[in-house]
This record gives sequence, structure tokens and C-alpha cells, in this order.
Amino acid sequence: MMKKLMLLLAALCGLAQAAPVERWGSTDIELKGPSSGNPFMEVELSATFRNGPRSLQLSGFYDGEGSYKIRFMPDTVGEWEYETRSNRPELNGRKGTVTAVAPGAGNHGPVRVRNVRHFAYEDGTPYWQVGTTSYAWTHQTEALQQQTLRTLAVSPFNKLRMAVFPNHDDKNVLPRYPFAGKPPKGWDFSRFDPAFFRNLEQRVAQLRDLGIEADLILFHPYDKNYWGFDQMPDEVNQRYLRYVVARLAAYRNVWWSMANEFDFLKAKSMEEWDSYFQTVQANDPYQHLRSIHNAFVLYNHTKPWVTHVSVQSGAITEDFERAVLFRDVYNKPVVYDEVKYEGNFTRRWGQLTPEEMVLRFWQGAIAGTYVGHSETYQDPNGLVWLAKGGALRGQSPQRLAFFRKILSESPPEGLEPIDKWQDYPFAGKHAQYYLGYFGKQAPASWPVSLFKTDLKDEMRFKAEVIDTWNMTITPVDGVFEIKKAGDYYFTDKDGRSIPLPGRPYMAVRLVRVP
Amino acid sequence: MMKKLMLLLAALCGLAQAAPVERWGSTDIELKGPSSGNPFMEVELSATFRNGPRSLQLSGFYDGEGSYKIRFMPDTVGEWEYETRSNRPELNGRKGTVTAVAPGAGNHGPVRVRNVRHFAYEDGTPYWQVGTTSYAWTHQTEALQQQTLRTLAVSPFNKLRMAVFPNHDDKNVLPRYPFAGKPPKGWDFSRFDPAFFRNLEQRVAQLRDLGIEADLILFHPYDKNYWGFDQMPDEVNQRYLRYVVARLAAYRNVWWSMANEFDFLKAKSMEEWDSYFQTVQANDPYQHLRSIHNAFVLYNHTKPWVTHVSVQSGAITEDFERAVLFRDVYNKPVVYDEVKYEGNFTRRWGQLTPEEMVLRFWQGAIAGTYVGHSETYQDPNGLVWLAKGGALRGQSPQRLAFFRKILSESPPEGLEPIDKWQDYPFAGKHAQYYLGYFGKQAPASWPVSLFKTDLKDEMRFKAEVIDTWNMTITPVDGVFEIKKAGDYYFTDKDGRSIPLPGRPYMAVRLVRVP
Repeated sequence: MMKKLMLLLAALCGLAQAAPVERWGSTDIELKGPSSGNPFMEVELSATFRNGPRSLQLSGFYDGEGSYKIRFMPDTVGEWEYETRSNRPELNGRKGTVTAVAPGAGNHGPVRVRNVRHFAYEDGTPYWQVGTTSYAWTHQTEALQQQTLRTLAVSPFNKLRMAVFPNHDDKNVLPRYPFAGKPPKGWDFSRFDPAFFRNLEQRVAQLRDLGIEADLILFHPYDKNYWGFDQMPDEVNQRYLRYVVARLAAYRNVWWSMANEFDFLKAKSMEEWDSYFQTVQANDPYQHLRSIHNAFVLYNHTKPWVTHVSVQSGAITEDFERAVLFRDVYNKPVVYDEVKYEGNFTRRWGQLTPEEMVLRFWQGAIAGTYVGHSETYQDPNGLVWLAKGGALRGQSPQRLAFFRKILSESPPEGLEPIDKWQDYPFAGKHAQYYLGYFGKQAPASWPVSLFKTDLKDEMRFKAEVIDTWNMTITPVDGVFEIKKAGDYYFTDKDGRSIPLPGRPYMAVRLVRVP
Repeated sequence: MMKKLMLLLAALCGLAQAAPVERWGSTDIELKGPSSGNPFMEVELSATFRNGPRSLQLSGFYDGEGSYKIRFMPDTVGEWEYETRSNRPELNGRKGTVTAVAPGAGNHGPVRVRNVRHFAYEDGTPYWQVGTTSYAWTHQTEALQQQTLRTLAVSPFNKLRMAVFPNHDDKNVLPRYPFAGKPPKGWDFSRFDPAFFRNLEQRVAQLRDLGIEADLILFHPYDKNYWGFDQMPDEVNQRYLRYVVARLAAYRNVWWSMANEFDFLKAKSMEEWDSYFQTVQANDPYQHLRSIHNAFVLYNHTKPWVTHVSVQSGAITEDFERAVLFRDVYNKPVVYDEVKYEGNFTRRWGQLTPEEMVLRFWQGAIAGTYVGHSETYQDPNGLVWLAKGGALRGQSPQRLAFFRKILSESPPEGLEPIDKWQDYPFAGKHAQYYLGYFGKQAPASWPVSLFKTDLKDEMRFKAEVIDTWNMTITPVDGVFEIKKAGDYYFTDKDGRSIPLPGRPYMAVRLVRVP
């Protein structure tokens, strides 16, 4: 009743009333304005959105041909009123309302940090990161982009690292460019090409609808000064960041990755990287996740604008006792986004066997961290997933789907190491849930032995044996009742062990029962 | 001639002229002043020391019985003039000179950070940290302290972690206390006991004369509120820090460790730890090294007042690929001060075999980091080196002497990992010096294979086989001439390998020859 009245009042008052939008959905307020001169440089447009005591400041953007947009993602249900500000009278003082309704199925909001070192969607649903990378997929032919989307739709991945700017080796295929001008380097850095960004947005929206987070890489070193997008003046970089944020922040699945292998961009100082973080932080009304990814030099991830740690390391997830170390350093979620790739590439960073790729996800999880996948199988046409997307041909993805299923059955607080530094391969939640992983070892049994924290005699657990490679879960007969045994452990009161098949890549899961 | 003239002038003018002191030696300016009231709280005393354009601000301290001291460590050779300031006329405006002469043998000055992640004495001599820990040795009987000093004199250790405050279990032996009052907790926190600190200083000076750095632990959790020194008010903590710095900063071998297992001191916040660092930093004219040591929670070692990283981890030095990780995080020297201990203690942190203790030093070195030792063999009288000092009975110290000798023959810039993340167990200096360590592996040979950085065909290397446990160095016949082999490595041009004995704990060293 109240809603109808509001709509009626809005109509009577001549206020713009957009179609209802889901909470954490996105809607554009479109206004017509000047197309002469250089609107990118000369026209300022912003808006304040209010819902009761809350208000959000949003920047608008010029989308070409006299069209100006303010892209809004309501983060609470209800009526939002907005009013624009501009240095052009036709864009200034424009008012309207947006009605935000309850989110639809699969819409859980943006991903946030939860429980210090883990993630959850804003509605509280746990987010178990299982990422992959395809840097330049949005710069390929339409057919190849569509193939990539079809591949992702049936993949286990719920995050994709992808670059805004093209690679230098995309030179033969690029249908559009981020700036007006002539390729390869005759750019007018004062004018964006809206068509380029509309394609990017379409892809981000399609990922969103597939339940995949888009970890947008804002700068990267793979241009090698061919297009020159890796060596733009600071003023252009800042304007570019503001434009990208204005266009893309309303997609709930956006994460901001300042760079891939930032330290390979030799011309940019640490102070510049700080300032890029700060620009994104200051302009993003929704405070999407922010990170920066290294090659050999680590950024200081303790800085306050870093929401989570995005790391490349070729060795850190080989065992859980390594992988756990950065958790203690940073007290933030740790994502090992690049741990070498499954494939048969000539370079040693692209030669993991599928078994090794899967192992690294498990070791990372047992360490209370998150891992990233990609694929580098050689292809006569250069169609490598890591660079261009297309098809996945590796054997790890189906095992990562199984892995993600196991994660999703874990405590919502996230997997926490049970007893770090002691070569004890278990994560979970003390006295409730224990997930153990034996990696390349091939034990014939595991003597039930739980680290003491929060345990008491007579607690009871059901157990399962998990074959992480063959993707089977086998319940173990009976219930294990524990009793204290020595300074550190509780064991089965009857001394029972869990039989294992003597193969590598086995896991066990123990869940408390009444 | 000039010097004699200066001395003459000083004598004529009635200025105090102390006996000459070595550069980086220590001398006391002693003044008589009031002994009534509470001099610790009521009398302010400081001095400015000038040598040409340089000046240092020093705080004095009350040493009891009307004696006031300003303890000075000249850090350049030459004539230093000083003038005191005080709120008491008899201590104010006192002037004099101190003549600093060249340092004697074995005096290389304080240890500083060198080459980002390594150490050197101030005169440029490399400092290869091989540390041990004996928390409460200065709180034992005179006889036991003397025994500890005799043990250290023939030990491999050039750093000793030691606590200013006693442990709770020193209750039966303590001859003196840091504060006036009645034990165990009837302290007058407004009055220090100078005799307590004189003993501490004597021990620090004796370590200095043995070439051993004193890593002074300023707070620790092993009091357990028995004496209450772990739970003093912030105002007392700050005064204590200023007093310790005033008394001890003039010992060139002092390092400041804010705490051992700081996170077990639950009552102190991170902000308090920050402020303790800042107090020490602001009051120490010589800027000795500063660190803080953890149990389970890491301090943010990226903060600017942290000069090097002091870490406890039970697992990080088990392999070099783990140990290297914190180097990248912090860009400071990394000292793994506590990696579990050699011994047969009931707790699992005190059960390393000597082989494991030595292995951790080598793994740390190959990672470009530094490691600490201690010993926890059970003793019927409770005489455990870790706690009380006395005798060393383990088998690691002699191997650590051998290890230190190998380090001391390495490039003065410090050992840098040759090819991190690639399971390549070598540190050194590209194209000059390669030190490889095979840990628990027992290879029968090593196919000469050097990672490519800075290498060229036809470079030549001499090799040695090092048995780190049996402490032998065996030259390998001939010279290895290298040629490029594949994307990453250079190998011997004739495909030669280096034979190894098939035992664990072996190392190889290759040094470039013309």
C-alpha cells in the first residue's frame, strides 16, 4: 500500500521512477546531455542516493552520443531517492527514485571478508573461493568469448582473474580499444571508447549471472609498451581508474586487482600503487574487495586499503605448513592466485601435472587459505586458457568441482588450521569438524588422533575417507569415541584406526555426532 | 700535537677530561648529586655530546648513593665535548671532553642492517648471526653465571637472547631485583635497584668482550604475575624502558627485543607495543637493532621502527622454500630465533634431535635468513640451558661452529637465494659463489647445474663437498667449465657430476675461478 502511494506521489511530482531492481542488482539512471566538446574531460556528474539514514555518493560517466549514466547497485531493500549534481544545468538537480526489492535466487550480494581470513557474500552465505585465470578472454573474437562463457558455466570456478587492458599479443584480434585513437599507440587518452567498456561490462554481468566473481586486473605488464597502456601518465591512470569504477562498481561480483605482477611494471613506484588503491577506495561506494598481485616483490599487504592478500608463489602451496605462513603475517584472507599452472608449456611455471594442481588447492585449504587455477596446455593455434580462454582440457577442473563441494560442506566460519607448525594435516573447527589431507603420502591407515583443543573424553565422531583424485567419499563404519592420550592428542578409546587404500591424495573427514 | 694541545687547554680551562676510550667503547661521566627524596623520579639529567658537526643527546641515570652517570659510546674517533642539563644546579651545565681513539682488536662496532636482509658491524665487517637463547642466566647464582660465560666463550654463538626480568621459577635463587621493595610483589615501582642493573651491565659487557651480541628481552610472559613485572602500569613500563636504555645503550653489543612471545602478554595491546618501540627508538642515541618476538600472533614487522624480523615458528626452517617466504614479506633481515630446541624435554617444542637443530640452521641460511639455537635436555637439577644457562651438552653446537665458519667464508653481501620457488637448494652470489645443501636427502651425486642468472659459457668453478654433520670439507678434483643447457641452467660442458657419499646433511660449494 505504502509502495503504491510512493509510486503515485513520484508520478505526481514528476520524479523519475526507474523499474524495480533487486538488492545488489544494478540499474542505470540515464540522462541526456551535451555531446559537443570533450564530455569525458569537461562534464562532471555525480549523484547522491538516499535510503532512510543511509546515503551513497556515486560518480556518473559519459557513455557516448550525449548519453550520461549513473549506475547504481542498491545494497538495501526499499525506496532510494537520488539527486544529481553536475556542472551542466541539464544534468544538475535531477531527482528520482529507485525501488530495490529482495534479491533473486543466486544473488547473495558482493563478497566480503568474513572471520578475518575467510570470505562470505554480504547476505552471510559462505564464499569458498575456487578461482581461475584467463587474462585476455574479453579481448578475443565474439565466438571465443562465447565459448569461454560456456566453459565457465560448467566449470567449478567461482572467480575469474581477468585484465581490463589487452595483452601485446592480442594485436591481431582486437575489435575495440579502451581509448579513442589509432592503434597501436596513437591514443587520445582524453577520450575513452564506451563500446570497449560496454563489452567488458557485458562480460562481467554474464559472469555475475553464472555466479562467478570477476577479479578485474586494472594494470598489467603484458602490454610491453606495444599499446602503451602499461606506461600511461599518472593523470591518465587516475582518470582511467575513476572511469572504470564509475562504470563497473555496480556489478556485485567485481573485485579490484590493482595489477598482475605489479613489480614487472618497472615505471610505477610503490607510492603510485598506493595512490591507485586510494583512488579506487575513495571512488567505490560499495567497497568491493581490493588486492594487488606480485611477481617477485611483495606489496605491503598490511596497508589498510588491501582487503585480502593475492599472492604468486611457485612453491608456497606445495605443503600446508608453508601455505599457512602468510595467514599469520597479514591477518587477512590469503589467496594464492598463482601457484604455477596445469599444462605442458615450455616454461616451468606452466608444467604442473593435474595431480599437482589439485594438490595445491587441498594444501591451501588445509592451511586455511585459498588457491587459484589456470591452464597452459600448448595449442597449435595459441589457444591457451590462461591467456585467451576457450576450452579447458585439463584434468584438474572436475577434481576442483569435487574439492569445492567438500569445502561447501565445511563450517561456514571457514577452515582453520587445527594445530599449525606440527606437521598435523588438519583444518576445520575444534571439537566439531576435522578435514585432513595426506597429499603425496600414501598411508595404509590413519590412527584416529585429534589435537586436544576443546576436546573432552567421550566425544564421538563419524568419519569418512575421501579420495580427492578419484572423487569418492566412503563412510567409515561405526563411531569413534575419543579419550585423552598424552599431552597433545585424543585418540579412539579402543585404539581404532581408519583404514586407507595406500594411494596418494587421500583425505579424511571427521564430524562430531551426539 | 693537536691532541696534546687540546688536553692542555682542557686542563687549563678546568674541564673534565675522561680517560681515552675506544670508538664504540663505553665510558661513564660520573657526577655527584642529591641522594635525598626520590632521585629516580625527581632529578632530570641529560647531556649533549658534540664532535664537529655531529651531536648526540644522552639521558643520564641515577646509580644510587648520590651517584649520577651519563654513559657514552663514541661512534667516531676524535674529541667529544659534552655539556649536561639538569633540574639540579650541581648537575647542570657541567662540561668536559671525551677522547675517542681507534677501536681495538675485535671491536667492530654495533651490528647494523646491511644489504636489506643481512647484517654487518658498523665498521663493515659482515656479521653472520648464529644465535642461542638463555632467558634467565643473569638471574642465577654467581657460580652458574660464571659457568655460562665459560661455556659461551668456547661456543659458536655470536648472539644470546636474554631477559632483563626474571622468570617466575627463579623464585628461590634471585640475589637482586629490578625495583626496590619486598619480593615477591611488594615493589616500589618508583625506585629501581641499581645493583640489579649493574649485574646485568656487567654480563652484557662480558658478552661484548666475548664477541657476543646481547639480544635483551625487555618484557616476557614467564613471570606469570608472580613478581608482577609482566603486569606493571604503562607509566612504569615507559620509565623502565628509558632507564634501561640510559644504562645499556652504550654497550655496542646491545640489541633491543621488545618481548619474547609478546602475544602471551595478554594485557598489553598492539598500541602499547608500538609505543614501547617508539620509546626505545626515541631514547637510544645509537639506534641499536630493534625487534619483537612472537608466539602465535605475528607483530606487524613492516612498521618502521622494526629493524629486523624476529620469529618463532616450529616449522618454517624445516626447508629452505618455507624459510625464504618471510624475506619477501618484510624486506628486512629475518631471524628465526625460535625453531624448536635440541633436547629431550617432555614438550614437543623441546625435542629436536641435534641433526634437526643443525639442519634448520642450514635451511635458514640457504633461504637467506638466520636461525637461533637453544637446548632443552632434561636435568635432575633443572639446569636447562634455555632457562638458566650453565653447560651445553648437545651435539649441535660444534656443528654450528663449523656452519659459522662456512658462513664466514661466504660473500660479505650475505647469502641470497639463487632461484627461489624452484626447489633449487642454493644460495650465494650469482656467477661467483654457490652454496647448496641437500638436507635429509642422501644423493649419490649432484649433476653440476647452476641457475642461469649472470652466467656465461666458459665460466669456471672449483667445487668442494661439505659434510655438515661430520664437519669435513673435501675438494673436488679439477675445474668445472659450464655451458648453457636449456632455458634455465648451465651445466658442466663435459656433463660431469660431483660424487656425493649417499649420506644426509651434505652440502656443495662452488666458487668461481679465473
